Amino acid sequence: MQLTTTTLMEAYKQVRSMTEKICAPLQIEDYVVQPIIDVSPPKWHLAHTTWFFETFVLKPHLPNYTEFHPDFSFLFNSYYENVGKRVMRPNRGNMTRPTVAQVYAYRKYVDENMLLFFEKISLNKELEATCLLGFNHEQQHQELLVTDIKYILGGNPLFPALQSSSFETSTCDLTENYLEVAQDIYTVGYEGNDFHFDNEKGVHKVFLHAFRCQDRLITNKEYLEFMLAGGYQDFNFWLAEAWDWVKVNGIVAPMYWHLIEGEWYHFTLHGLQKIDLYAPVTHVSFYEAEAYARWRGKRLLTEFEWEVACKMYNSEAEGTFLESQSYAPKTRNGNYPQFLGDVWEWTNSSYLPYPYFTKAAGAIGEYNGKFMINQMVLRGGSCATPQNHIRNTYRNFFQANLRWQFTGIRLAEHI
Amino acid sequence: MQLTTTTLMEAYKQVRSMTEKICAPLQIEDYVVQPIIDVSPPKWHLAHTTWFFETFVLKPHLPNYTEFHPDFSFLFNSYYENVGKRVMRPNRGNMTRPTVAQVYAYRKYVDENMLLFFEKISLNKELEATCLLGFNHEQQHQELLVTDIKYILGGNPLFPALQSSSFETSTCDLTENYLEVAQDIYTVGYEGNDFHFDNEKGVHKVFLHAFRCQDRLITNKEYLEFMLAGGYQDFNFWLAEAWDWVKVNGIVAPMYWHLIEGEWYHFTLHGLQKIDLYAPVTHVSFYEAEAYARWRGKRLLTEFEWEVACKMYNSEAEGTFLESQSYAPKTRNGNYPQFLGDVWEWTNSSYLPYPYFTKAAGAIGEYNGKFMINQMVLRGGSCATPQNHIRNTYRNFFQANLRWQFTGIRLAEHI
Amino acid sequence: MQLTTTTLMEAYKQVRSMTEKICAPLQIEDYVVQPIIDVSPPKWHLAHTTWFFETFVLKPHLPNYTEFHPDFSFLFNSYYENVGKRVMRPNRGNMTRPTVAQVYAYRKYVDENMLLFFEKISLNKELEATCLLGFNHEQQHQELLVTDIKYILGGNPLFPALQSSSFETSTCDLTENYLEVAQDIYTVGYEGNDFHFDNEKGVHKVFLHAFRCQDRLITNKEYLEFMLAGGYQDFNFWLAEAWDWVKVNGIVAPMYWHLIEGEWYHFTLHGLQKIDLYAPVTHVSFYEAEAYARWRGKRLLTEFEWEVACKMYNSEAEGTFLESQSYAPKTRNGNYPQFLGDVWEWTNSSYLPYPYFTKAAGAIGEYNGKFMINQMVLRGGSCATPQNHIRNTYRNFFQANLRWQFTGIRLAEHI
Amino acid sequence: MQLTTTTLMEAYKQVRSMTEKICAPLQIEDYVVQPIIDVSPPKWHLAHTTWFFETFVLKPHLPNYTEFHPDFSFLFNSYYENVGKRVMRPNRGNMTRPTVAQVYAYRKYVDENMLLFFEKISLNKELEATCLLGFNHEQQHQELLVTDIKYILGGNPLFPALQSSSFETSTCDLTENYLEVAQDIYTVGYEGNDFHFDNEKGVHKVFLHAFRCQDRLITNKEYLEFMLAGGYQDFNFWLAEAWDWVKVNGIVAPMYWHLIEGEWYHFTLHGLQKIDLYAPVTHVSFYEAEAYARWRGKRLLTEFEWEVACKMYNSEAEGTFLESQSYAPKTRNGNYPQFLGDVWEWTNSSYLPYPYFTKAAGAIGEYNGKFMINQMVLRGGSCATPQNHIRNTYRNFFQANLRWQFTGIRLAEHI
Repeated sequence: MQLTTTTLMEAYKQVRSMTEKICAPLQIEDYVVQPIIDVSPPKWHLAHTTWFFETFVLKPHLPNYTEFHPDFSFLFNSYYENVGKRVMRPNRGNMTRPTVAQVYAYRKYVDENMLLFFEKISLNKELEATCLLGFNHEQQHQELLVTDIKYILGGNPLFPALQSSSFETSTCDLTENYLEVAQDIYTVGYEGNDFHFDNEKGVHKVFLHAFRCQDRLITNKEYLEFMLAGGYQDFNFWLAEAWDWVKVNGIVAPMYWHLIEGEWYHFTLHGLQKIDLYAPVTHVSFYEAEAYARWRGKRLLTEFEWEVACKMYNSEAEGTFLESQSYAPKTRNGNYPQFLGDVWEWTNSSYLPYPYFTKAAGAIGEYNGKFMINQMVLRGGSCATPQNHIRNTYRNFFQANLRWQFTGIRLAEHI
Repeated sequence: MQLTTTTLMEAYKQVRSMTEKICAPLQIEDYVVQPIIDVSPPKWHLAHTTWFFETFVLKPHLPNYTEFHPDFSFLFNSYYENVGKRVMRPNRGNMTRPTVAQVYAYRKYVDENMLLFFEKISLNKELEATCLLGFNHEQQHQELLVTDIKYILGGNPLFPALQSSSFETSTCDLTENYLEVAQDIYTVGYEGNDFHFDNEKGVHKVFLHAFRCQDRLITNKEYLEFMLAGGYQDFNFWLAEAWDWVKVNGIVAPMYWHLIEGEWYHFTLHGLQKIDLYAPVTHVSFYEAEAYARWRGKRLLTEFEWEVACKMYNSEAEGTFLESQSYAPKTRNGNYPQFLGDVWEWTNSSYLPYPYFTKAAGAIGEYNGKFMINQMVLRGGSCATPQNHIRNTYRNFFQANLRWQFTGIRLAEHI
Repeated sequence: MQLTTTTLMEAYKQVRSMTEKICAPLQIEDYVVQPIIDVSPPKWHLAHTTWFFETFVLKPHLPNYTEFHPDFSFLFNSYYENVGKRVMRPNRGNMTRPTVAQVYAYRKYVDENMLLFFEKISLNKELEATCLLGFNHEQQHQELLVTDIKYILGGNPLFPALQSSSFETSTCDLTENYLEVAQDIYTVGYEGNDFHFDNEKGVHKVFLHAFRCQDRLITNKEYLEFMLAGGYQDFNFWLAEAWDWVKVNGIVAPMYWHLIEGEWYHFTLHGLQKIDLYAPVTHVSFYEAEAYARWRGKRLLTEFEWEVACKMYNSEAEGTFLESQSYAPKTRNGNYPQFLGDVWEWTNSSYLPYPYFTKAAGAIGEYNGKFMINQMVLRGGSCATPQNHIRNTYRNFFQANLRWQFTGIRLAEHI
Repeated sequence: MQLTTTTLMEAYKQVRSMTEKICAPLQIEDYVVQPIIDVSPPKWHLAHTTWFFETFVLKPHLPNYTEFHPDFSFLFNSYYENVGKRVMRPNRGNMTRPTVAQVYAYRKYVDENMLLFFEKISLNKELEATCLLGFNHEQQHQELLVTDIKYILGGNPLFPALQSSSFETSTCDLTENYLEVAQDIYTVGYEGNDFHFDNEKGVHKVFLHAFRCQDRLITNKEYLEFMLAGGYQDFNFWLAEAWDWVKVNGIVAPMYWHLIEGEWYHFTLHGLQKIDLYAPVTHVSFYEAEAYARWRGKRLLTEFEWEVACKMYNSEAEGTFLESQSYAPKTRNGNYPQFLGDVWEWTNSSYLPYPYFTKAAGAIGEYNGKFMINQMVLRGGSCATPQNHIRNTYRNFFQANLRWQFTGIRLAEHI
């Protein structure tokens, strides 16, 4: 599908302004730090997404473009080995310069040139694809901005809130309802002409044995039962590597949970709040998701089962997405099958290439393929995902121990 | 299939004597050390396999059985959390007592009682299953004994040989021949009544897209070409995590390879030898196998593709197995499809449960299921695997960086 | 010596404003980070020195004083175990809140109350001593502010300058001149009634064998000769632990030195500059100082020899101190014996208690005594030390591998 | 003092046979392992001490000497960088070959050649010095053999005894008696013509302020009082670095102590025994010795005070030494001043060079000088020290956290 230049330009503006909207409530200090290797400083995200457009669009394609600063390519390249030297990830949080103001000036400069680019250049298909990749790349960093800001503020003993609006909770019916999928050959992977990542291409067939899965996510209330039943203390529920992780790190609850005078609270971007019992449990690792499922006598879905069930039962996404700026998964509002938004769902599938997958040449080819080892697939998007970024074929992936993303649980079993 | 007690007893004797045959050329000193966490001291293997029969057969089932030593359960339990406390794996190599002589006395004592057990006890199905698990468990440790002894001697600056017999090499035709498998639904997993592990149960259907794979393993000669072409120096061939591994560990060749005055040697249990060019390359990590395949513009098989191809093309195993006691993979002797024996083949499948997989209750249930995360599946057995231990449904698994097993490479591609 | 309240109040104002003067050229971002455990964020120094006055003066002694914020005691306590819980040192750099503006508001609030305190309260000797300790404590943090800011900016790939003024160099006569001290009993340690730290009390006698020492510091030019002679490549010059440090960390030059197109530069707070050849070498570890001395066939002074020589030959301090705000050691301006200022001199004395040393009770007693193990004594102050803070009895101390302070070398030998 | 060749030869035989006597009760397995980096395998000690004579005496001085094995120099060099490559310390415990039998053959071969050497060669002063250094070097390894064997057996869950003889205890009077030393100039360091190490040379004067010290060592009974009073739980008694060590390692008692059903036992080379209450406490770190002294309101001696007091009060050594083969410190048998033997006494002196200390050229010069950083001096010898090896000027040294040597406590204070 060929997009008009105007559509692209509008999309560009929309994406760029959303990024800055997320950062608007930050203090300058919040932009700078990197408390753990996985969490990048917000100012780095702002600059790196800009670097993408400068490096892959402006420098090769806008005549007479002068780069903003000769060192920024080194500073804000993330992992593309094909694009030269780069600041190693653990050091991003030590770089106090360029300042936040300079980074915003960089964004402004690149934005102005990008508009010039859209006005002047007639796009071919490849260039359009690069632009779309840039938009989707920046949307991925929007999600990371939310989760990284949450980590930065959530580790502060003052528990500062990003948002002053009130934290809303509600209740729902916790009856369990299962969606059935019959044994058959199904097609998975992206088919169509809109933007998609290389890792979801390679549409192919899979044989699925009959199964059923919950029509909603596991809630905090249900997860608390696992905790109270001693789930974190009994090795029988855990994978061997998971049990080591629990013991070495003294894990007793999801991330951001605090037991204060006998009551559980969780840190949200609205500050410290009592647990929202009917909202989906989040900030759990794959290890915890898998252990919870085993404790319940169930299992997680594979990513193929998830995709097939989602396509079958969820015609429209009604969950909580980035645009709401509530930055917390919410109680299901009605009994619709809850698949997209709120929390990423850990699947019991490893992140591996689809049949026929091939890596693109050059830097773009480093986008996804080189991470296909020792990570688990997550599906469905979260409350920090832009709504138009997610798809039922979208494959996210993280290491089994990571918890700072909005990650949750759905149960399944064979019929 | 119900086995006669006599058959079981003979199998028991055969397995037990094979273990001791492997260790016969060792010096007492060789039995004691644990140079890395993955390598257990030979004396520990001897005792741990014995502990299995004492714990799961003799103590619960032989009336009036007196355990050999009250502390051995603690000392020689490996990872069964359900069977009480255990010596942590990193400390196995510090335990100089019990002595090797005491461990052999333990074996003798348990063997005598096992024979008594076979004579006296009428076996039910469950008890027979436990015995068979014990035999197969000991066979797995026979393979580990070979690879651990190789590691212990191979790290010694004197490069001592275990075997005095000469190291034989030969050549073969390196023309590439591919075996084709058509797109279809196939059945994988163990079906039958003989012994098998829980992880290969859950016979189920998979849909495979058409593919073809080599009819033999990649040789040292072919792998050397990758090395000479700078394969270890170009990040484009490597997964991101693999590239870190290469750089951090300074990897430039398979394990046990030494460049001496411009010529490559490898350590074998016959001592240091010139590279056997036409033998299958071995002691490569998953990372190396995957990088080699990418360099060749091919890929590794999935474990399902492997199983289907093996069933289709390899009616009889003709490879090199433990019984030959050559302890080195060999040049294919003819043009038969080479699937079983010689080296374990890294597949591009993660070690995950089959549909319908369930963990058995108690200690036996800890055998396989709890390791189903962050490991890759290997298929086919090796020159250190007992021939009657391997099957075309057999699933072995290791972390992607490990190299001390006899591991190798077969290439594939979609048609 | 009893000071008047007015004198104390003036001293308070002077110290407090000097601290803020050091920070004036910083960007807000520079205040936040902690690139290594030894380097604290500037905003932490600003708050911690303020916390000292709030905790030890205002809260116990100013009636009706309301603390600025209930959590700041937890946030800005450094290591006083007697004053309750504290943020662990490695996490200081993750705390983006309180903001820099809030920290300055904290300073302002405490300053106003301290002036109230000086006006209202008639000081007894103990209270005066606490105030003086607070001033000297803040002066110590002034030095750390300079060195920590240098580390923060010096690790930035942009090499930002703190100061826009030009970096001045000059030359001097490098003839070696030695000062002699005869064998005798000497007195060391602080005698008098002015402020001093507990670790320099315990005035006592030492017997010194006759020795002589250089009348100036080793220069960059002289140190470069050691580098060019292969000093960093020959284990014979190094202590065993030092040689490990050289190899593991790949040390080939003092900290902040960069070899750019065949020429040596060093990072200064005026930005990257060509090596100032005639200035004292600085940012060397004890290991390097000791190795340099051995290469020269000489040795370092003990702290007792240093104190005796300094008292004997250096009636007045003429070196470079904090007040110059040049933040770099300078060429000796004339041939006066160079002892105080410019760089701290590594001595070959371990930091141990003097005879009769006793630890004060409570939090103040944790000031010095508990660090008396595995650190080496440095003497003389540096270009980052306030001139009225240093004394010839002053004992500074750091671990042998640390280099981010302005540390240098003087040679000595027995006669 | 020139020794006769016969005397030297007899001394050689005596030393060599003592080493083998220590090892006589070992099982072959005990000779092989290296449970921590500080503990070398007994077979390594046997070979390394032999390597010393081969390398420094036989190869350079015995005409036509053929070395036993060309690789042994590489295998059994310890840390002499001047003598070529060496097996890194952490790998000593992985080398199962050469076997124990081969190591004893190596000893026999070198012994025979050494006797030949003593018969044939007329010794000059330098050669005699090298021989004496070899004897003393082997005596140091005799002590390490005892402590390393204790570590190897003491970490075994079976707590095997090395010696079958009974473990004898007795009681003594715990009244405290202090020895006084007046303020004066004293001479320390070795004076004389017998063997001594380079680090005790440099006889020189020190000024000591008046002090007094206990005439005996602190007993287990007294140390238990510290434990029961919560000494390990109160940071006020500990150096900052010591307190970290206590917390990180969960230290609650001296090494080898085990609390079994409410009663304290310690592992000895006679197996696990109830605490010998009146024997000197041992296997404490410097940290613990220093904390105990502070809890008592006292301090440790400096090494100079110790030497002066020992010379003044202890004309003859009456303690427990290696030759008793009891391998445990004993209750003082009478009220003589207890200085030599039983346990090494931690002093509050860092291991630093004496005035006029110079490093010898070549490999011998690496013996002591290069360790003069971040170690504390111990004095007096222990129950594992050969009696004719110890002197009142002898300087031993270890890192402050180490406990596997027989180390203990004596209290002192200024008068």
